[in-house]
Amino acid sequence: MIRVGILGATGYTGLELIKLLLRHPEAEIVRLTSRQEGRPHIASVHPQLSGRLNLVLEEATADVLADECDVVFSCLPHGASSAAVRPLVELGCKVIDLSADYRLRDGETYRKWYGDHHADIERLGKVPYGLPELFADEIRTADLVANPGCYPTSAILPIAALVKLGLIEPVDLVVDSKSGVSGAGRTPSLTTHFPECNESVAAYGVGHHRHAPEMAQIASLASGTEVELIFTPHLIPMDRGILTTIYARPTSNDSPEKILEALRGFYNNKPFVRIVDHLPATKHVTHTNYCDITVRRSGKRIVIISCLDNLIKGASGAAVQNMNIMFGLSETAGLL
Amino acid sequence: MIRVGILGATGYTGLELIKLLLRHPEAEIVRLTSRQEGRPHIASVHPQLSGRLNLVLEEATADVLADECDVVFSCLPHGASSAAVRPLVELGCKVIDLSADYRLRDGETYRKWYGDHHADIERLGKVPYGLPELFADEIRTADLVANPGCYPTSAILPIAALVKLGLIEPVDLVVDSKSGVSGAGRTPSLTTHFPECNESVAAYGVGHHRHAPEMAQIASLASGTEVELIFTPHLIPMDRGILTTIYARPTSNDSPEKILEALRGFYNNKPFVRIVDHLPATKHVTHTNYCDITVRRSGKRIVIISCLDNLIKGASGAAVQNMNIMFGLSETAGLL
Amino acid sequence: MIRVGILGATGYTGLELIKLLLRHPEAEIVRLTSRQEGRPHIASVHPQLSGRLNLVLEEATADVLADECDVVFSCLPHGASSAAVRPLVELGCKVIDLSADYRLRDGETYRKWYGDHHADIERLGKVPYGLPELFADEIRTADLVANPGCYPTSAILPIAALVKLGLIEPVDLVVDSKSGVSGAGRTPSLTTHFPECNESVAAYGVGHHRHAPEMAQIASLASGTEVELIFTPHLIPMDRGILTTIYARPTSNDSPEKILEALRGFYNNKPFVRIVDHLPATKHVTHTNYCDITVRRSGKRIVIISCLDNLIKGASGAAVQNMNIMFGLSETAGLL
Amino acid sequence: MIRVGILGATGYTGLELIKLLLRHPEAEIVRLTSRQEGRPHIASVHPQLSGRLNLVLEEATADVLADECDVVFSCLPHGASSAAVRPLVELGCKVIDLSADYRLRDGETYRKWYGDHHADIERLGKVPYGLPELFADEIRTADLVANPGCYPTSAILPIAALVKLGLIEPVDLVVDSKSGVSGAGRTPSLTTHFPECNESVAAYGVGHHRHAPEMAQIASLASGTEVELIFTPHLIPMDRGILTTIYARPTSNDSPEKILEALRGFYNNKPFVRIVDHLPATKHVTHTNYCDITVRRSGKRIVIISCLDNLIKGASGAAVQNMNIMFGLSETAGLL
Repeated sequence: MIRVGILGATGYTGLELIKLLLRHPEAEIVRLTSRQEGRPHIASVHPQLSGRLNLVLEEATADVLADECDVVFSCLPHGASSAAVRPLVELGCKVIDLSADYRLRDGETYRKWYGDHHADIERLGKVPYGLPELFADEIRTADLVANPGCYPTSAILPIAALVKLGLIEPVDLVVDSKSGVSGAGRTPSLTTHFPECNESVAAYGVGHHRHAPEMAQIASLASGTEVELIFTPHLIPMDRGILTTIYARPTSNDSPEKILEALRGFYNNKPFVRIVDHLPATKHVTHTNYCDITVRRSGKRIVIISCLDNLIKGASGAAVQNMNIMFGLSETAGLL
Repeated sequence: MIRVGILGATGYTGLELIKLLLRHPEAEIVRLTSRQEGRPHIASVHPQLSGRLNLVLEEATADVLADECDVVFSCLPHGASSAAVRPLVELGCKVIDLSADYRLRDGETYRKWYGDHHADIERLGKVPYGLPELFADEIRTADLVANPGCYPTSAILPIAALVKLGLIEPVDLVVDSKSGVSGAGRTPSLTTHFPECNESVAAYGVGHHRHAPEMAQIASLASGTEVELIFTPHLIPMDRGILTTIYARPTSNDSPEKILEALRGFYNNKPFVRIVDHLPATKHVTHTNYCDITVRRSGKRIVIISCLDNLIKGASGAAVQNMNIMFGLSETAGLL
Repeated sequence: MIRVGILGATGYTGLELIKLLLRHPEAEIVRLTSRQEGRPHIASVHPQLSGRLNLVLEEATADVLADECDVVFSCLPHGASSAAVRPLVELGCKVIDLSADYRLRDGETYRKWYGDHHADIERLGKVPYGLPELFADEIRTADLVANPGCYPTSAILPIAALVKLGLIEPVDLVVDSKSGVSGAGRTPSLTTHFPECNESVAAYGVGHHRHAPEMAQIASLASGTEVELIFTPHLIPMDRGILTTIYARPTSNDSPEKILEALRGFYNNKPFVRIVDHLPATKHVTHTNYCDITVRRSGKRIVIISCLDNLIKGASGAAVQNMNIMFGLSETAGLL
Repeated sequence: MIRVGILGATGYTGLELIKLLLRHPEAEIVRLTSRQEGRPHIASVHPQLSGRLNLVLEEATADVLADECDVVFSCLPHGASSAAVRPLVELGCKVIDLSADYRLRDGETYRKWYGDHHADIERLGKVPYGLPELFADEIRTADLVANPGCYPTSAILPIAALVKLGLIEPVDLVVDSKSGVSGAGRTPSLTTHFPECNESVAAYGVGHHRHAPEMAQIASLASGTEVELIFTPHLIPMDRGILTTIYARPTSNDSPEKILEALRGFYNNKPFVRIVDHLPATKHVTHTNYCDITVRRSGKRIVIISCLDNLIKGASGAAVQNMNIMFGLSETAGLL
């Protein structure tokens, strides 16, 4: 059994990760940490876990964690995460970081978008981006993996493939995403207060959301071509799920059917990417690790629709998938 | 035009009140107060009001308010409300208090349920309870009216009528209410965080909700009989609306039809109480000042269903209805 | 009082229209029609209207309607609507058609998108498009007005203005809309079955939604420039509201602030268009006749956000606004 | 591997059953039936299953099913279900019937509540009621099990225990339930049309819901005491989950803590019943096979709160739990 520690287990990605790992045949959760005082039982924070996991949330040193855990997942906020991750990596513990800290490829971009609080900024660019469908080889041998953002996963999977396949132009891409509210995390705010966001839709972070540079950098890296895109996220009154609508310029007059066929070839043997003929709804993928993708033509553009569960394929499911690859298990273990 | 001031206009009852008064043919809002610093424009707090009301939120002394306003609505929290209301009343300003401060009939009960912070506790029992269908005579001549709670309105209207009509026993009443989340106010909390309360139902305050004594006291007062009930509120994933299901012991074998007929007689000429034959849904009454009520038999009990919009008939609509009565206007002015 | 008839009052636009007209100071509903048998009372179809409107739904000939009504609103489906509207117009009755029948400017486009069932196709292009902010002059003197579609209103208002102002290029416009479910009408289907569309988002009609040619034709007409756009609608788990995100190419490096200023000038004295600085949410406009619009820059594009209530400004509110103009009333009568 | 057939797999219980069985270590789905023509692929009905289960929906005779399947789950409607189940049982195939056909204990009650269409009415009373926490011994050796209704499971678990423990009186029980919309099935109707039931709560079937006699009969059977109750279901705007609030007369002055302790003893070693101290929300149990129960005192009553996922513990999860017991597997196989 793989002994697992989770840093910052009080949020939604922590909860999903615990639920996935409780069902995993080869993993055992041995440590949960939190900055909360008083060593609360995990079931007092997440009543869903009553009777399912008998652990308390407590502070633990890197030494203890590295000693007791084969792998540590960090669900800490950016900045705090790299500070906790770095000593673990240096102590030889495998780490999957769900924060944004190691996703961007260079310190300059990180500082521009996240500010100066990064404890390990020189490692940027050397840590594999944990999208197994594109970077499995690097992940397999890594000690540290940067788990992708939820929006970026939904955008990079189709964009990187279609750019690499030469089917869309790498420029003037419009990425319009719709996300459930759990993507905003578990800290209450007016924006996520039920009577404010229920029965309402709004865009946010227009033109300056941190996932935009992540999408562009990784899509460029994966496709081998500089990708230029703009990104607009919207908050949707539902718990979970992201639907991303991408407007791209086709490079030819290929029919959507032909493009879908090429995508099927590209993602052949990738169990969690489903290239579908119908227009997918987020409900088809919530509570699963799947990303459903389809393509249509509209005027001079092709429209790509992609959807996933922001907490599973967009966070904790991808993290487990990374763990499976890092430990030589079946990629789908615990995820079907 | 009646010159209106609103204390604590940043919450949901304040917003609804403003929207109702903007449509009212005889009222004009002249003052909004708030403890927020910086004199924010009301539209910066409630973007719904952009271009509709050009007032800032500011602090104002009782002297200024009493001078400039014919009536003041207090949307302040309990405790704070009586402290602001008392000087206004003493300066001769009419006041409608949407807080709980003047609803209970005696200081002892107030202290038991709300604690010691009441600036005007000796007035308790002398202030009319602002349920116009039951207390219009007192309201008409009052300087201060205690606007009812949302749950109590939904329960007292049918219970008081049926007890007074002698159709149900005043004891062993079970009141089970289901409320939208706006009833919890506008301050974010984990309970009202979208991903927590959406797609979920839970009871809260079981056996100790402050609206239970209010229901019992006022139903007793209105019916002239001591009423004994228990009350369980539930949080429902919707913005607004309360549905209250009441289980009562009938005093006879009267059919539901006969009971409905008696209720229709009781609430004859009360424009906002609709005794209906069908099972009403909260959607039938949201965004209106109506309370829909019906009755069924189930085993040895009669089941009463009552519903209203917690922010309108359960708060701001009732407040405007009270204003209309206090100022000799048509009871329905601005409310249809 | 303007005597009003409503054709096809059983749907959601019919219900909203009734509610608006009940509050209108100069209008009185005198006739409701429906194909439903048995002359059902309107309150048996819409329990919201219990005690508020005492009319039955019945069939009525054009003669009767033209005789008894000063204006008739048609909420019938396309095809059926023109068949009912034509004789009314010929009898001299003013008509506001909420269907799509008279919106497109030529028969060929109509046939391509709606098929052959149009009883009055030669009138196409002669009927004013009922967007008062752009076509008030034609509406003022019209006997028949084609009330706009919900999506088109949200898109045309900003696009027509910005094209006419020369601030965006009229080509390669991407229109990505998010709509509440009431836009799909009141007939149950699997798509609108609660457990299917709740907690889910999906695109539909990608590349072939009938509102795309309406947007393009009317935006071209209003701006005097051929406009080319693509349109993708999405179904959002909420009752009402449309948020439209438009990606346009700016013609200059003007700041968003400067563009907003130009828009404010363009829509000066248009009471229901609010050019706002913040990112608007549909909740700011639902249950109102407002359309809120803002602009941001993102990469090389400008992003326009527009929102409205699909049943009010997107349908029945606009219809009342048109009536007000056609009868020389204040444009805002009954709508604030 | 247990070879599984599912009758009527197009509904929500069918979908949940498939998802649970796909994860089950000892079961393999080999046959899906439906009355739909054209042998549609299951993924064309439930896109969730794309790439996960490669079976078509087809008609199959009892002979074929009995030959190819070790167990058949029937998700057919009542009436149709017994007609399909009877021959399977007679051919020696184990059957778990998710319909209501075999739940009631006698034909007279069945006819009163469900009418005359029952193909196997003489078997009533001989088929174990599939609530494993109460009837595991009978289930273990049964060829046919009557899978419980969703509301009854939530009510019987606490009521049967507390009556048997002598802690509540078996009479005058008030059962007030709140259910998500998936409980109404997958056939569209006006009641379940999103814009009708969203943002709304209503009671239905007051005094005459078919689950009332099921609750009373089974609670009586399990407790050995005649139980008398009334039941009111309510429709809640959420996909799934039932919260049941039960008002009972205590037989003593025992504290809630003491009652909870007795319940913990009663359900000791029952892995899916969690007696909790906090007030549970349906969100704590949705997508799981747990039923969470707590107890409070309110006035002279005790209030019992119980919640579960109507599609899992209230239907398909319980069905798998029954299969596990019938085949000698761990009760929790595939369910954690």
